[in-house]
Amino acid sequence: MAKSTLVTLLTDFGTRDPYLPAMKGALLRLCPKAQIVDITHDLASYDVLAGAFVLAQAAPQFPPQTLHVVVIDPGVGSQRNILAAQFGGQRFLFPDNGVISLVAEALPLEAMHVVQDKRYVPDDASMTFHGRDIFAPVAAHLLSGLPMSQLGPQPQKYLQLDLPSASADETSLKGQVIYIDHFGNLITNVSMDQIQSRFPNFDLLKVFCGQTEIGPLTGTYSFVPQGAALALINSMGLLEVAVNQGRACDILGTGVGTPVALRTE
Amino acid sequence: MAKSTLVTLLTDFGTRDPYLPAMKGALLRLCPKAQIVDITHDLASYDVLAGAFVLAQAAPQFPPQTLHVVVIDPGVGSQRNILAAQFGGQRFLFPDNGVISLVAEALPLEAMHVVQDKRYVPDDASMTFHGRDIFAPVAAHLLSGLPMSQLGPQPQKYLQLDLPSASADETSLKGQVIYIDHFGNLITNVSMDQIQSRFPNFDLLKVFCGQTEIGPLTGTYSFVPQGAALALINSMGLLEVAVNQGRACDILGTGVGTPVALRTE
Amino acid sequence: MAKSTLVTLLTDFGTRDPYLPAMKGALLRLCPKAQIVDITHDLASYDVLAGAFVLAQAAPQFPPQTLHVVVIDPGVGSQRNILAAQFGGQRFLFPDNGVISLVAEALPLEAMHVVQDKRYVPDDASMTFHGRDIFAPVAAHLLSGLPMSQLGPQPQKYLQLDLPSASADETSLKGQVIYIDHFGNLITNVSMDQIQSRFPNFDLLKVFCGQTEIGPLTGTYSFVPQGAALALINSMGLLEVAVNQGRACDILGTGVGTPVALRTE
Repeated sequence: MAKSTLVTLLTDFGTRDPYLPAMKGALLRLCPKAQIVDITHDLASYDVLAGAFVLAQAAPQFPPQTLHVVVIDPGVGSQRNILAAQFGGQRFLFPDNGVISLVAEALPLEAMHVVQDKRYVPDDASMTFHGRDIFAPVAAHLLSGLPMSQLGPQPQKYLQLDLPSASADETSLKGQVIYIDHFGNLITNVSMDQIQSRFPNFDLLKVFCGQTEIGPLTGTYSFVPQGAALALINSMGLLEVAVNQGRACDILGTGVGTPVALRTE
Repeated sequence: MAKSTLVTLLTDFGTRDPYLPAMKGALLRLCPKAQIVDITHDLASYDVLAGAFVLAQAAPQFPPQTLHVVVIDPGVGSQRNILAAQFGGQRFLFPDNGVISLVAEALPLEAMHVVQDKRYVPDDASMTFHGRDIFAPVAAHLLSGLPMSQLGPQPQKYLQLDLPSASADETSLKGQVIYIDHFGNLITNVSMDQIQSRFPNFDLLKVFCGQTEIGPLTGTYSFVPQGAALALINSMGLLEVAVNQGRACDILGTGVGTPVALRTE
Repeated sequence: MAKSTLVTLLTDFGTRDPYLPAMKGALLRLCPKAQIVDITHDLASYDVLAGAFVLAQAAPQFPPQTLHVVVIDPGVGSQRNILAAQFGGQRFLFPDNGVISLVAEALPLEAMHVVQDKRYVPDDASMTFHGRDIFAPVAAHLLSGLPMSQLGPQPQKYLQLDLPSASADETSLKGQVIYIDHFGNLITNVSMDQIQSRFPNFDLLKVFCGQTEIGPLTGTYSFVPQGAALALINSMGLLEVAVNQGRACDILGTGVGTPVALRTE
């Protein structure tokens, strides 16, 4: 089967420094037909959890066999492994620091290998820029058709972050804000699946964010007046608290970790 | 005629969140040979007017039949239409909220259709992320050769913003700042065409910005000393007030809406 | 020999305004098969030195014959030349303002021509946007196979910035911070080559940054506790002062120009 030459990059390199273009150049030098798409490079430095979230939301949209290269890697040069894996038909190359956690929750694991074969991991790799010196050449080999299994053995285990999960009782479902997008919308860890299984009459639920009552679930932002708060199930299937054409995070004074709840009264 | 697979994206999604890569993935899943170029994703959220300006300046530079997909869409999920249109040989896919206004002023309308055919607008589209669920698949179909006319009927009308225009009297031409670029340059709605038709001896005119006299028109930034203010006709054919290697918006204390004038004395 | 159609762009246009997409559109209009990769557009406006640094670090990573187009050009429209050159198998198109200086230090000059032939420099180019009106069409011609020598004569000379260099005495090597990356890491002009040639026992050296003693050289960021300062030879072969998962520039109160030293005691 012909492998895709489509490759995405998700790093905390930013877009101002030489790091990202150097990595792209190194990739194109070994695989000139690589088709590179940026996921993001603008997350806070070292923010593995935000990277895990963005990766899990974006990667499944791509064509099968797309290779997703993730370099949010505060442990660069240490003993942490680099892993290559396939989940749900998508390929991933990433440091073993938990950044794969939310992909691993959402998609079935189909293959995983430690990147260690000396043919593909150069001896003269720098200790501080594995993006250019290891991830880029290994990605180029994978895009050129190298089977993942040639990179090294299967790992004994891999790191999964201990993520907060929603909890339910008779009259409520409780979770928290896990990501704030650039519009200021508050995305939570409460899913529509959880809501529907607990409260089939979910139209009757009221949403609370911190101490603020938001109201019942609505359909989309523009269903409330401009500047008003609302709650909806977003395009990821998650409970989201927002303000129509405003920044909910500023207006409601919330951050990642703020508790949210749906209550029957 | 072979249609172009070149597609540009102009959104207010920013570049940090999963939205933009999810949209690109959805587009590539249906049209793997799409060649994606970013116009911008960094305008202020919901700023339809700035989007209209950037679109009108950038789109005409692209090859004929390029498809320009615009998702600055505060009304997502509401009754607003999505439109597909061709102006001046360029193709556009956009929400009917006025973002096409400045393209429509500059280029001849050649076709326009409401995007509504159920074959191309999925029933299970989310109400909050039409970029991924409607714009991306419709764009993929257009890039793959679907005629625009298959998307739906011609609209009765489409929204055009009521934009400020320049006005003239015997001794002056008055307009205002309509866009401030990232250098801090002040771009106005006074065009070279207007100036030349009113004041053939335009070398004699003096430019005023707010209460500040800038001086006569000059050729380029470096024709005045570093840090000095100047006025010129910019590469868009519009009057611009700038500071050589400085930020005119900060130094002159101006913003979008600040009045500008050219006077014969 | 088939020339590459790979082209990189390094500008100070930012990513919000119409300038960058207009330049990409103009390039694609003349050369639809151009494969565009962004180096960066996010440096401070008019920062020729930072552009020179990023260019020299990123460009050599790309495949041979890649064309690197640089438009950091505060002198646009003035008498400054536009130059096309080949250094170390990489092609460059740039304003003659010193932005090529660090490439010229690192790679051998193989060809250089002034861009002036009227066939390729349009008479109706704007005075303020040579990126769209000159750099883009000339780049398209070069990508389409035009020999550089057709653009114009060899220049008598070209501008090289007078850059600070490191100095040594019996017991120390002194340099300065020349670039601060978006992680806040401090990159200096002291190279591993200089250190090794002067002080073969470089493991015994202590690094100082401003008034602060950092300690001996270490291998990578995570070899010191989170929040601790360190010094290492980075992936560019340069002395770098950093803080593990912190911003050295803020924590150490330093900027471009801060003195650094390695001392034998």
